[in-house]
Amino acid sequence: MIQKGLKGIVATETLISHIDGENGQLFYRGYEIREITKRFSFEEVAYLLWFGHLPDETQLSVLKDELKANRDLPEYVKAIIDQFPPAMDLMSVIRTALSAEGGNLAYGWKPSVSQAIRLTALVPTIIAYRERFLAGRSFFPPRSDLDFVENYLYMLDGNVPLAADIEALETYMILTLEHGMNASTFSARVTASTESDLVSAITSAVGTMKGPLHGGAPAGVIDLLDEIAMVGDAETVIREKVLRGEKLMGFGHRVYKTHDPRAVALKAKLMELVGENEWLDLAMTVEETAVKLLAELKPGRLLYTNVEFYAAAIMKAINMDSELFTPTFTASRMVGWTAHVLEQAENNTIYRPQSKYIGTYNKS
Amino acid sequence: MIQKGLKGIVATETLISHIDGENGQLFYRGYEIREITKRFSFEEVAYLLWFGHLPDETQLSVLKDELKANRDLPEYVKAIIDQFPPAMDLMSVIRTALSAEGGNLAYGWKPSVSQAIRLTALVPTIIAYRERFLAGRSFFPPRSDLDFVENYLYMLDGNVPLAADIEALETYMILTLEHGMNASTFSARVTASTESDLVSAITSAVGTMKGPLHGGAPAGVIDLLDEIAMVGDAETVIREKVLRGEKLMGFGHRVYKTHDPRAVALKAKLMELVGENEWLDLAMTVEETAVKLLAELKPGRLLYTNVEFYAAAIMKAINMDSELFTPTFTASRMVGWTAHVLEQAENNTIYRPQSKYIGTYNKS
Repeated sequence: MIQKGLKGIVATETLISHIDGENGQLFYRGYEIREITKRFSFEEVAYLLWFGHLPDETQLSVLKDELKANRDLPEYVKAIIDQFPPAMDLMSVIRTALSAEGGNLAYGWKPSVSQAIRLTALVPTIIAYRERFLAGRSFFPPRSDLDFVENYLYMLDGNVPLAADIEALETYMILTLEHGMNASTFSARVTASTESDLVSAITSAVGTMKGPLHGGAPAGVIDLLDEIAMVGDAETVIREKVLRGEKLMGFGHRVYKTHDPRAVALKAKLMELVGENEWLDLAMTVEETAVKLLAELKPGRLLYTNVEFYAAAIMKAINMDSELFTPTFTASRMVGWTAHVLEQAENNTIYRPQSKYIGTYNKS
Repeated sequence: MIQKGLKGIVATETLISHIDGENGQLFYRGYEIREITKRFSFEEVAYLLWFGHLPDETQLSVLKDELKANRDLPEYVKAIIDQFPPAMDLMSVIRTALSAEGGNLAYGWKPSVSQAIRLTALVPTIIAYRERFLAGRSFFPPRSDLDFVENYLYMLDGNVPLAADIEALETYMILTLEHGMNASTFSARVTASTESDLVSAITSAVGTMKGPLHGGAPAGVIDLLDEIAMVGDAETVIREKVLRGEKLMGFGHRVYKTHDPRAVALKAKLMELVGENEWLDLAMTVEETAVKLLAELKPGRLLYTNVEFYAAAIMKAINMDSELFTPTFTASRMVGWTAHVLEQAENNTIYRPQSKYIGTYNKS
């Protein structure tokens, strides 16, 4: 009767994505993501999720222009970020800065794709603005000749990134744009269901993503790679961990009972970059060793590499600070969240489940 | 199979409240609210919701002191509110100011009653600070000799309010502290379920409450009372509305199939104040007339007065601006939201329902 965590309950129909855990497949608008990452850019896939079909050349160009035109933070939002205490974590910074952007009169029912584009465009700028501010360095404003992922990396340190770095991060960001009815996406739909505005819905999603149970942050894998790099012998480190009964970070997934298709797609991309970066090469070695040892020491468990494993390798490879992992995941997931809110608004019913009272009754 | 809006699905067990719609009863921790409003103060009922039992004298005194000690906004939060555009609505102001308060390191898993008390204490100050700022007037800091509701009214205009005004508003605020698994409370529990912090959960709830479908804002009833006051004849106005097929604001409720117990409790309190305020007197006349006419014109429909009806009368009586209605509702509901997040944290399961893909599959 009680559906703890609403497990198994279908909360909505959707046209946005489909996860086939048994067969290890993930579809965005009906396109399998391993096909998508081979052929399309971040902007093309964002277009697909927002508009429901792939863009032609003109549509893509219009979208890129609109993303670029909305990258600059309003002055009052910058002034607000300047007031945040130094210890404020980046997810709280993003949540508050986006909430402050909601002071703009343009947000109201119904949410629009233009609003979705604007909020998505702002997140990398919020992250970079805060990081530069904390470092006591001057902020590099967005550059209109750079696309979404390239510009994000540029704003973080003022250097136009290497093509291989862009490609690796872009693949990761495409693969994390959307992933069904996870807790953050669900919270965005619940908030939107009262006909509240898109800013409120996204503020809910960012706050929900902030929780460590949401997962998706590859910090644990980073520790594993660091340890192996230091010891210099993948087999020894992994064997000891498995024999001690420790969970091997980066292997196994709650939903995917076979290969995590995002890990497969990331690996395929990284194979193209072999020899270009020591961390990517190390990740390949670690995966091979881990799969071999898991088969030997835990036969029949079928623990495949998950998306966090290669995400961690990419973050190491492009030298991204670990505090930026969840914020970067947030920057890409903005697309999925906003697409879901737009879908919710098209055929809205307020979310109002029941609770069951299990207490006693008193006389006061 | 699809549970649109999760209607009828039990999302959690709870010890906090119980709504019996068939019998027109609402219980906080097992105490019927008509009993509660006769005997207890805002602080006593907040204590009941947070701690699960009524306070003794010492416990009540400690809670009052803690609420008072947490009323002052941090200087950086004031500086942030000062930056908000003038057109920013109050619900966005509350959402953003509370989110900014999350820059304080003290928020983290697990949420605590102390955090709940602090955030609840801040909301009236946020509202008053913003209202005074917009009016170009100096801010009246909270006064430590005044209790929660009294101090809220004091901060809005610098006058210690009349006892009758305090009593009327306090009764309304007690009756809106908590109301089961509505959309805002549910969103707070979803956000908390990833082990995110209390600030994130409450930010979600405020953003969800902001949507007009959440209801609870008595603005429609105010319009009705204003129209009747102007025309000077309740019967004519109401008869014409009902005959034109218009919905009569303030009558009927989705959940309560009989008397709304909150309306009954409010009316009982207002009966004590008859003759003290023309708007309360008008509301009594309007209710009697409406009930009589609805029985005559819509026999068998059983449309009883709901909580918004008397809430509107109170807001008129104490001369509160209509833009303050939902924020004032928010100030009281903070107690219910935080109590639910504390309960969620005690026995947490992440909320992760399913979605059902209803699209086609493509080849890219």
